[in-house]
Amino acid sequence: MNLTDVQRAEIAALRDTTAPTRRASVPALEEMLYQALPVLDHGFVRVIDYMGDDAAIVQAARVSYGRGTRRVSEDAGLIRYLMRHRHSTPFEMCEIKYHVKLPIFVARQWIRHRTANVNEYSARYSILDREFYIPAPEHLAAQSDSNRQGRGAVLEGQEASDVLDLLRADATRTYDNYAAMLNEDADGQPRDPARQGLARELARMNLTLNTYTQWYWKTDLHNLLGFLSLRADAHAQYEIRAYADVMLETAKAWVPATHAAFMDYRMGAITLSAGMLAVVRRMLAGEAVEQPGSFLSRREWTEMMHALAAPRPDP
Amino acid sequence: MNLTDVQRAEIAALRDTTAPTRRASVPALEEMLYQALPVLDHGFVRVIDYMGDDAAIVQAARVSYGRGTRRVSEDAGLIRYLMRHRHSTPFEMCEIKYHVKLPIFVARQWIRHRTANVNEYSARYSILDREFYIPAPEHLAAQSDSNRQGRGAVLEGQEASDVLDLLRADATRTYDNYAAMLNEDADGQPRDPARQGLARELARMNLTLNTYTQWYWKTDLHNLLGFLSLRADAHAQYEIRAYADVMLETAKAWVPATHAAFMDYRMGAITLSAGMLAVVRRMLAGEAVEQPGSFLSRREWTEMMHALAAPRPDP
Amino acid sequence: MNLTDVQRAEIAALRDTTAPTRRASVPALEEMLYQALPVLDHGFVRVIDYMGDDAAIVQAARVSYGRGTRRVSEDAGLIRYLMRHRHSTPFEMCEIKYHVKLPIFVARQWIRHRTANVNEYSARYSILDREFYIPAPEHLAAQSDSNRQGRGAVLEGQEASDVLDLLRADATRTYDNYAAMLNEDADGQPRDPARQGLARELARMNLTLNTYTQWYWKTDLHNLLGFLSLRADAHAQYEIRAYADVMLETAKAWVPATHAAFMDYRMGAITLSAGMLAVVRRMLAGEAVEQPGSFLSRREWTEMMHALAAPRPDP
Amino acid sequence: MNLTDVQRAEIAALRDTTAPTRRASVPALEEMLYQALPVLDHGFVRVIDYMGDDAAIVQAARVSYGRGTRRVSEDAGLIRYLMRHRHSTPFEMCEIKYHVKLPIFVARQWIRHRTANVNEYSARYSILDREFYIPAPEHLAAQSDSNRQGRGAVLEGQEASDVLDLLRADATRTYDNYAAMLNEDADGQPRDPARQGLARELARMNLTLNTYTQWYWKTDLHNLLGFLSLRADAHAQYEIRAYADVMLETAKAWVPATHAAFMDYRMGAITLSAGMLAVVRRMLAGEAVEQPGSFLSRREWTEMMHALAAPRPDP
Repeated sequence: MNLTDVQRAEIAALRDTTAPTRRASVPALEEMLYQALPVLDHGFVRVIDYMGDDAAIVQAARVSYGRGTRRVSEDAGLIRYLMRHRHSTPFEMCEIKYHVKLPIFVARQWIRHRTANVNEYSARYSILDREFYIPAPEHLAAQSDSNRQGRGAVLEGQEASDVLDLLRADATRTYDNYAAMLNEDADGQPRDPARQGLARELARMNLTLNTYTQWYWKTDLHNLLGFLSLRADAHAQYEIRAYADVMLETAKAWVPATHAAFMDYRMGAITLSAGMLAVVRRMLAGEAVEQPGSFLSRREWTEMMHALAAPRPDP
Repeated sequence: MNLTDVQRAEIAALRDTTAPTRRASVPALEEMLYQALPVLDHGFVRVIDYMGDDAAIVQAARVSYGRGTRRVSEDAGLIRYLMRHRHSTPFEMCEIKYHVKLPIFVARQWIRHRTANVNEYSARYSILDREFYIPAPEHLAAQSDSNRQGRGAVLEGQEASDVLDLLRADATRTYDNYAAMLNEDADGQPRDPARQGLARELARMNLTLNTYTQWYWKTDLHNLLGFLSLRADAHAQYEIRAYADVMLETAKAWVPATHAAFMDYRMGAITLSAGMLAVVRRMLAGEAVEQPGSFLSRREWTEMMHALAAPRPDP
Repeated sequence: MNLTDVQRAEIAALRDTTAPTRRASVPALEEMLYQALPVLDHGFVRVIDYMGDDAAIVQAARVSYGRGTRRVSEDAGLIRYLMRHRHSTPFEMCEIKYHVKLPIFVARQWIRHRTANVNEYSARYSILDREFYIPAPEHLAAQSDSNRQGRGAVLEGQEASDVLDLLRADATRTYDNYAAMLNEDADGQPRDPARQGLARELARMNLTLNTYTQWYWKTDLHNLLGFLSLRADAHAQYEIRAYADVMLETAKAWVPATHAAFMDYRMGAITLSAGMLAVVRRMLAGEAVEQPGSFLSRREWTEMMHALAAPRPDP
Repeated sequence: MNLTDVQRAEIAALRDTTAPTRRASVPALEEMLYQALPVLDHGFVRVIDYMGDDAAIVQAARVSYGRGTRRVSEDAGLIRYLMRHRHSTPFEMCEIKYHVKLPIFVARQWIRHRTANVNEYSARYSILDREFYIPAPEHLAAQSDSNRQGRGAVLEGQEASDVLDLLRADATRTYDNYAAMLNEDADGQPRDPARQGLARELARMNLTLNTYTQWYWKTDLHNLLGFLSLRADAHAQYEIRAYADVMLETAKAWVPATHAAFMDYRMGAITLSAGMLAVVRRMLAGEAVEQPGSFLSRREWTEMMHALAAPRPDP
């Protein structure tokens, strides 16, 4: 992650300015505010603003005139209850806004979460930076044999170095040609006065999908948790999970009671279908159930046995 | 509007507590925070929290690292530009949360605006207060002759007093019977030990639609302005317009540049259809156009002439 | 449910008219189309239109040029996979539109599901029918002792008949006064020429919450299932569950493979939190776990034991 | 646009199959159904399914039991009224589903319209076709001098041919390297048995933004019109406008009365701000207003004079 001196100064200026507020405030999140938390090779997540805290969830659930809170333990208990019974509206009463720098192919996965507000840096209007994502060697994985949308072993030796060379060379060349077609120097003057320069909205089509873009992204806590439950999950593509993991840390600083309930009831939880539940009941009654007599498909059986056997994160 | 002493104390406690924040803050809105701004006979609007300010709109539109603002005049110009060209996403970067007390029939109009977060006081879970809306005499209007969903002249004399008597008597009686069916006293004990008491989720069906309910309602600035453009409009029912007018004042305190642009480009603006525009062009060229030769229906002609003739609110 | 002769004739006319279409069609749902399926004492659900079928889900998941389907068993397997792994977007590719007649207090619960399109009969513009919901004796329940938003035993004897009398009398009186304040006869002429008549938008506030309203309600299959998973659930209030149960039948006729997967993976499923899962693992390993050593609260323990013990609907 | 023989056969099979339906049907749109309407060099728009017609809008607006329609002229008049007064909910009662093949940079603009359902072809799971968008010479425009997000004159001569060569060469090379890194032949077997092949979810990052993707996209008529009003507009980038223009034709076949009202009240309409309206009133009163005395900025003055002077599309 390379910030320019101007950008660092802008961030420092924001962090140096405080004002008194009557609003709910969270010191642990204030501490993180505006800082660029690094992700991947050139990306970051910055918390720009937030509304509400754990107590605001309680306040809204009770539609109260005041803070709505009683003892901290009672509040945490109510939050656990709301999470367990999927009462989503109180969690919508908190809101967070991020500034994110991310590769375009990650942005395309991310934007599928529609209940959010987005302002993306416009490559129709402006010129993108010369930055692209190149995986670290340990993330350069082969196609999975068993899962059509998954990764297998890490590539090694000549194949790995060939892939990295190709990714670097192609991204560099297409960016350089993008810049050449634009025909603008740093001051917006023509590099070559004999050429007009291709329109920005057209030239951008020459960039590869690992080029970095950036956006402001704002959502409520309920939808943030929905995003994290899918994207901080082991089945998510590593590159978006790297962002989700950092955002999960910001959620922990922001709303610790909600974060704890979320880890217990969502991230660490499993869902048993009616058919799986019937099997578990038979097992608990002492029966030795096998897949053929379980009424479950082989795939569902495997998924269930994996869930029941594997150690999961502690609550 | 009658707040209990406990409620007043809770509000005062919130207002007395401040904390330093690095977030964008708006002193004029901080001044209003948590206060119950009266609406109708027993209703109110309270600003509970907010995120962002005019500069946050500019910051998001520019996807900037810092505050994003330049001179105040440039910011206001950009906000006017965004409003004029219906760039909605930067305005979504600000968020506001209200606590509102309102009659149920108003809540039913309001909830049609779906892009918002809502926590309503649950009459399944709790007992509603004994408060209902009775129109002030100057708002007790007859059915309009010309507009099937509008109001005509104010009722007067015997008819007016009969209507007010009926509204009061019916609301009072149905509430008293609601309480009787519940069979609970203020401490949650049975009034009449011989009766079980009807379930709250059933008893509430006996209440009239002018009974007050309350909710937390949170939305982004873009959707707030969409709500206000419909509900602070002269065609809106007076009872919801009374809320919209108060909320428009909170928006003015919160985001003054956006409010000014909104008054100019939305509240005070008119839309000319292609057909109307053709007529205006002919008029500007000096032609004396009449409805029969205008290609407009009589209704559209009347609406256009009204819009072109009537004084509108200043920008 | 009382339809007028005119309404019956309109429905019959719609049912008698067919046209050839190239679109996906579902004979079992065509059979139900437009019919008023009765709910509660005066309500109904009518399927007005639909888009797509089970195969359309497969077609969208595969982004295919043709029907996208292979063998029926493969399609059902893919649908089960999509449901199990919460892939929601393919289910959004089917859409259904209902005409529903329902008490206002049910409409107020229902409208909390925001991802839907709604056109409600306007009591600002028109006059509501003289119909209100009165619970059947077996649904006239006392407040639950254990659950603040639940029902207990059925009311009996004098208390039951008193409640029914009160509900009927109050609904009748408030409706009659509504009609009197409107001062309109069936032809829209003044009943009493000496009175102006109160505006409809005001008079409606005198109606009780069990008055019937009606709306067109349209949503996609994913959101329909979300609605049904909450409202066809045993914890939902009986009056809205009665609607959900009928709609669940329409879903079964429309998309049988999706319905079967939904019953297995959502309606009949349970979620085990990380903490509950740890307990189940210990139990499966043969340990006799008790609540005090389970790290679960008493409430969570009870909920888990109930889920593991109780018979659930078959898949 | 190159469809394979298999794809053509699948489309033909869909078009050859009809079934009787009681639903609202539109012969003119049935005629278009499933056909690939070409857009740009390799893209297309296919209408896959639809729900409702002009009469369904009327039916929902009236919450009727039957078809809801009266005379065709009355229906058209109601639709014009609803459009003029921005009553959006009746238009939400119609739904349409498209299959679209489009360059990724166009998909990224399009997806900003969030109120729609989308299933995109997954390059995590599958391998993209070797197709990329190369602008026709007449669309190869220079950057605009006056508008930072617009196009100027068409490029000519050497600069034009250089740009086309670069675009073609870079897209070809990056695609070939994508295929090489994947190391799969047409049957999914390794090209080079000595290599593992890079995971699909990683290899795709090497593709340029003019690579074609495809998706199923479904939305309601209200949101379709919102999309078209922005994307069929002269200020939209040509490449997305090409799609919007074709979709506008499908809307005309589907809901002709709504289309006509839309062209009059939205596409051909202008909005006058409060300040502009004040100027027009002075002009209509015979005053010769100039910009300096207009209270409008130079930019707003220019925009207004342009709108009042320029010929607009006929209603």
